[in-house]
Amino acid sequence: MRPTWTGSTGRVEAFSDGVLAVAATLLVLDLKTPEDLGQTGVWSVLAHQLPTLAAYATSFLTILIFWINHHNVFHAIARVDRWTLLVNGVLLLLVSFTSYVTSVLGAALQRGQHDREAATLYALLLECASICFSLLWRLTQRGAARVAGRRILIGPLLYLAATLVAQLSAQASLAIDAVTAFYFLLLPGATQRRDLPS
Amino acid sequence: MRPTWTGSTGRVEAFSDGVLAVAATLLVLDLKTPEDLGQTGVWSVLAHQLPTLAAYATSFLTILIFWINHHNVFHAIARVDRWTLLVNGVLLLLVSFTSYVTSVLGAALQRGQHDREAATLYALLLECASICFSLLWRLTQRGAARVAGRRILIGPLLYLAATLVAQLSAQASLAIDAVTAFYFLLLPGATQRRDLPS
Amino acid sequence: MRPTWTGSTGRVEAFSDGVLAVAATLLVLDLKTPEDLGQTGVWSVLAHQLPTLAAYATSFLTILIFWINHHNVFHAIARVDRWTLLVNGVLLLLVSFTSYVTSVLGAALQRGQHDREAATLYALLLECASICFSLLWRLTQRGAARVAGRRILIGPLLYLAATLVAQLSAQASLAIDAVTAFYFLLLPGATQRRDLPS
Amino acid sequence: MRPTWTGSTGRVEAFSDGVLAVAATLLVLDLKTPEDLGQTGVWSVLAHQLPTLAAYATSFLTILIFWINHHNVFHAIARVDRWTLLVNGVLLLLVSFTSYVTSVLGAALQRGQHDREAATLYALLLECASICFSLLWRLTQRGAARVAGRRILIGPLLYLAATLVAQLSAQASLAIDAVTAFYFLLLPGATQRRDLPS
Repeated sequence: MRPTWTGSTGRVEAFSDGVLAVAATLLVLDLKTPEDLGQTGVWSVLAHQLPTLAAYATSFLTILIFWINHHNVFHAIARVDRWTLLVNGVLLLLVSFTSYVTSVLGAALQRGQHDREAATLYALLLECASICFSLLWRLTQRGAARVAGRRILIGPLLYLAATLVAQLSAQASLAIDAVTAFYFLLLPGATQRRDLPS
Repeated sequence: MRPTWTGSTGRVEAFSDGVLAVAATLLVLDLKTPEDLGQTGVWSVLAHQLPTLAAYATSFLTILIFWINHHNVFHAIARVDRWTLLVNGVLLLLVSFTSYVTSVLGAALQRGQHDREAATLYALLLECASICFSLLWRLTQRGAARVAGRRILIGPLLYLAATLVAQLSAQASLAIDAVTAFYFLLLPGATQRRDLPS
Repeated sequence: MRPTWTGSTGRVEAFSDGVLAVAATLLVLDLKTPEDLGQTGVWSVLAHQLPTLAAYATSFLTILIFWINHHNVFHAIARVDRWTLLVNGVLLLLVSFTSYVTSVLGAALQRGQHDREAATLYALLLECASICFSLLWRLTQRGAARVAGRRILIGPLLYLAATLVAQLSAQASLAIDAVTAFYFLLLPGATQRRDLPS
Repeated sequence: MRPTWTGSTGRVEAFSDGVLAVAATLLVLDLKTPEDLGQTGVWSVLAHQLPTLAAYATSFLTILIFWINHHNVFHAIARVDRWTLLVNGVLLLLVSFTSYVTSVLGAALQRGQHDREAATLYALLLECASICFSLLWRLTQRGAARVAGRRILIGPLLYLAATLVAQLSAQASLAIDAVTAFYFLLLPGATQRRDLPS
């Protein structure tokens, strides 16, 4: 029943691709044209919005990594069963929620108020999404899971570190989130295995 | 004329996929970063927005179910005729309208004002979308409709129940909507028949 | 050079599909949850927003028709040359502009101020988009243009009528726009020719 | 390993297509229905928003060009390695940022305040995106890069000119950005080479 199966993951991927691409692009709506543009000028407005811009870039690159990872895991999935659909649904819900949490983090960083709480919320969201990916890897064929190997643990561990660090410094926590995204984007063992030849 | 037909459903599905994925992701725009973040802190803001978050998650998972169901029914459709296009067009209009109705329900629940009216509107919208799906199943080949069987009735009946319960309690009505989404996501007979092997 | 050509129209269609689906779904953002929900209740809010809802539904169905028509014309296009790209680019720009013009029309109808101006702008936008489609049909192979026949004229003529009627009544003009969408959705000779078997 | 490779660029392109189409369509959200519609009328509102409309149309056509160029370069890419993914990720981040920068430019032009700063920011953003494309062309097979030839330089040089002119006049800088978009849309050597037959 190969063709049926191919069709099935293809469909899940098409919808997931749509949600991921729209979620990544919607992030920009958190960047509002400031009312006081006239007084302060463009460069000081940008400087003032720097924390929001950093949160925005981190979220964008994280969703890009999620998208690459999503394709890798679905490439290794043999059968789309109801548990895959459920975990994937929760994952997409978390990803679509990123825009809101990024906006809260940006606002908190900009005002310097409750920023550690906001960074905790942000890191917890990425932690939950990361665990969803680990669950999806567990649902693949045994061989693929073994190939994926330690990658299943690296994401959740890094975001756990970001969650813990957020209790001390929001900026440091966001830096860990950003570094995690670049780590997965650049390390060949993490993102390029199997179907993206390097 | 098989290739022509394949192309036709493929196109309708591509546009429908786009509308469904965007509609699901746009829901997050209803979650506004509160102005009083500074005073109250992130966690109490989240607790205060809990009704909106519940409505948001219910709508997201419902659109996910609609998307799965949409693929199932179009898989069984032999010919995309003008009635299919019309019913599908109305269905997509209703789905794109979900974002607004979710926003109204979230606001009403949060303020505790007119929440039963808002829950009625919400359940009625899902009822209408559900009836569109039943109409689409009726437009498929006779065999497919028989296979779909009672599923054609379950959706409209559950949302009718949610509409009636909304006269007594908005929270209970939303709970029925959420349970309906999980029911369709997890029961194999509902979502996985035919083309999603379980 | 058949494969190259197929690839080319496929790409133009993929981007156009994306723009059309997003433009249709973004329309819902014009429907704002009213501030005075608490005082007036959900049903009277909906009744008050009825003109906006009518403009929203008309725009959604019109973009749906544009999408069907877009596929028909690109199905008949043999070579994607620079003029096709230019006209298609202007068409997509006009379609993406629909959301703004719909919002202006809805606001004007709701306040009963300058509504004929807004309806004129709305009908003119659809007129321009309709003319783009006629130009695209002219760029297809001669045979396809002859098959398309009078359809090339019907759209621009109907929207011209809507533009003229808008000088007398905004509501009547919007009604013509809505009837035009249903006309193209239901008449087999208009939307179903060639690749959507009826 | 040809099939794997095809799949890989196909995936990168699907996500990139989604981001580009959504980014182009989101631009319209910068056009707000003015509050003073009642006093001034539709036409004077449009006239007042003319600078915003010009920035909006320029950004839309520029993203359309980016999309055509993106397909051309990925058509010539033999292997999607980690550097391609990184440069493409930065490019998509810049494109998704266009909506915000367009909004800032529109607001600055409309108020006549800090407009040269805003035009500088806008031209710099396009310059950076243009350099990303040049980097991507460098990552393709040697043959394709030679075919692309001077095109690699034309984009960055034109946007550099726009950046410099922005120090004197925001309007003139925006005009160069718009002319650049039309130049790439209409010149066969720029956009149609290789896979879009002319």
